[in-house]
This record gives sequence, C-alpha cells and structure tokens, in this order.
Amino acid sequence: MSTINNGVNVQALLDAREVLKGAPEAAQFTWRASSTWQNGVHSTVTIQKFFGLGQEQAHKTETVFSADHPEVFAAEDNGVTPIEYLLVGLASCLTAGVASVAQNRGIQLRSVESTVEGNHDIRGILGVDSDVRNGYNDVKVTFNIDADASKEEIEALVAQSQKRSAVYDALTNPTNVTVEVA
Amino acid sequence: MSTINNGVNVQALLDAREVLKGAPEAAQFTWRASSTWQNGVHSTVTIQKFFGLGQEQAHKTETVFSADHPEVFAAEDNGVTPIEYLLVGLASCLTAGVASVAQNRGIQLRSVESTVEGNHDIRGILGVDSDVRNGYNDVKVTFNIDADASKEEIEALVAQSQKRSAVYDALTNPTNVTVEVA
Repeated sequence: MSTINNGVNVQALLDAREVLKGAPEAAQFTWRASSTWQNGVHSTVTIQKFFGLGQEQAHKTETVFSADHPEVFAAEDNGVTPIEYLLVGLASCLTAGVASVAQNRGIQLRSVESTVEGNHDIRGILGVDSDVRNGYNDVKVTFNIDADASKEEIEALVAQSQKRSAVYDALTNPTNVTVEVA
Repeated sequence: MSTINNGVNVQALLDAREVLKGAPEAAQFTWRASSTWQNGVHSTVTIQKFFGLGQEQAHKTETVFSADHPEVFAAEDNGVTPIEYLLVGLASCLTAGVASVAQNRGIQLRSVESTVEGNHDIRGILGVDSDVRNGYNDVKVTFNIDADASKEEIEALVAQSQKRSAVYDALTNPTNVTVEVA
C-alpha cells in the first residue's frame, strides 16, 4: 500500500468522516457563484467564496467562466453553452472519485480518461414541442483507465465513484431549485 | 420594438423553431466533453466539438476547464469543485433566457446579475450517513435586474426563462446517466 500514490490524501478524508460523524453542522457547505450578463446570451460567472466547516472559506484564486451559445444558434460563441458545464462537473466528479477510491483500495492509477456525451433535443428549449423536455434526454460517460488492476477491479472503482458522486446524484435525482427576483 | 437591443437575435431563434417543427432530426444535439485525470482529485476537461443540425459542429475555440477540491478537503485547489460547475451552468442558462425573453418582449435590459447558492451536506459524499444525499440539498438563485420594465414584468421574464431553461430542467428533474468502462 505504501508505494501507491495517486495524490489523494485518503487519510485526511477518513479522518474528516470520523470528525463529521459527531459534528453534522460542520458538514453543511454552501457553494456560491455570481453571474453577470454581458450581451446577448453571453454571461460571465465568478466563483471564489464558499461556506463550510462552520465558517467562510475561499478558493486560492477567483475563477471567471464565460458562457454563450454557438454561432449555429445565431450567437457569438464567447464560451461553452450552459448545459455543457454540467458535463464538465460530471466528468471531473467521477474522475476525482476514481482517484480517491483507487487510493483507498491500494490501486495505482496510470491514466484516467473519460468522454461524456449528452443527448439534447433542442425542440424543448425552443418551444417547438411541449412534450420534449428542456434538459438532456440522457448522458453517457465512458472511462478509459490504465491501472495496476484487473478489468473487474477497475469497473468496481468506477461503480464506487458513481455511488459517492455529488454531480452524478445531482443529475440523476431531482433537486429543489428556487429562483427569485431581489 | 426596433430600439430594443439586448444583443439576442430572436428572429433567428423564431425561424429555427419553425424549421425544426418539420425537421425533428435536425434538433438532436449531442454535447461532448473529454476529461483527463491529472493527479489527486485534479482533472482537466476539454470542450470543443458537438453534433447538431445533422452534422458535426465545433465551438470557435477549444476550452479547457480545471476541477479540483479546495485545501480544506486536503487537496490542492487547482480549480473549482465539480459541483460548483453546476452553478455556473444554472446561472448562465437562466441569464441567457432572461436576455432572450426580454428581447422577444421588447424589454431593454441594462444589467442582469445573479447569485446562486447550493446547500450541500458533505456527509453524503464522505459516507458518514447513508440517509444524506450526495448532491445538493437545494439551490437558490437570486436575480437583480435593471430594465425598462415593471417589477411584475421582470418577474415574468425570470419565470419564462426558468420554464425554458435546459439546466434548470436538468437539475430539477432526473436524467438517465450511464457510466461505462471501455
């Protein structure tokens, strides 16, 4: 086990699990983003501060994301589309999970690649057919993993990552979203 | 109407709606992302190509996103967390909708700002309590909009944006996500 290093501090996570068992209030995080409309369907979204472990926290740096629609939607393509950001979250969440579970199971990873495809019938958002949903019809993630492990062990890594993934849960199960005007 | 300009080509969208009524196959889009594990829970996700209108398409440029966990999770904070990317998508999708609906209704926007907060009990992902879900408990979006319109008209803009939002739908309703190992 000692020679396995995927760069994940599993001990810190296991310690956090023990601490949070007795301190559920410290486990309440609030993640935040603030958005500014630029022009057309182009906006920028800034992320830095969040709340957790009972106090205000911050990422080391502020990150600004740009979202727009592509030119085939008669827009200026100043960034990826909003719905593509969901794929970024999904791929990175499952990948982080694979690395963490592999570390915990003593499996050395050499490479983890994935592709994500989201099928989207845009008749929903355009209001062509009210029976077509606005979001993705379905999403498929395909992993290519090179590791010191059997195919079965690699499949088990991915299955466990999925079981603990925040973003997989957020996409496959409903969440209450309230939208207000200040 | 002619003096209103929010930068959205509403006529192109209305034309697309008419064309896609008779060509549902052209409305089938596939959005794609590819992810590469870096180290620990740090990964990069690349977006450029997609499929739609019956053929391969591409954004003008390739965009690479970085995702990681913050230092309070014993990670290196090389990017925002995967679950924060969902907030980027939600804020930008609703903002694009506000701009589009305002253009269609002849309402001149001056500024559209929003804040998004996602409450997340991290006992789920850490496996502290199996009754706690992995994803967000709930998400709240608050808009601040300056426009040539009454409070009621602005609230109606936001409501209509929500009704047509791809990301709002993807978060509030379940989507089938399949995860495979190649």
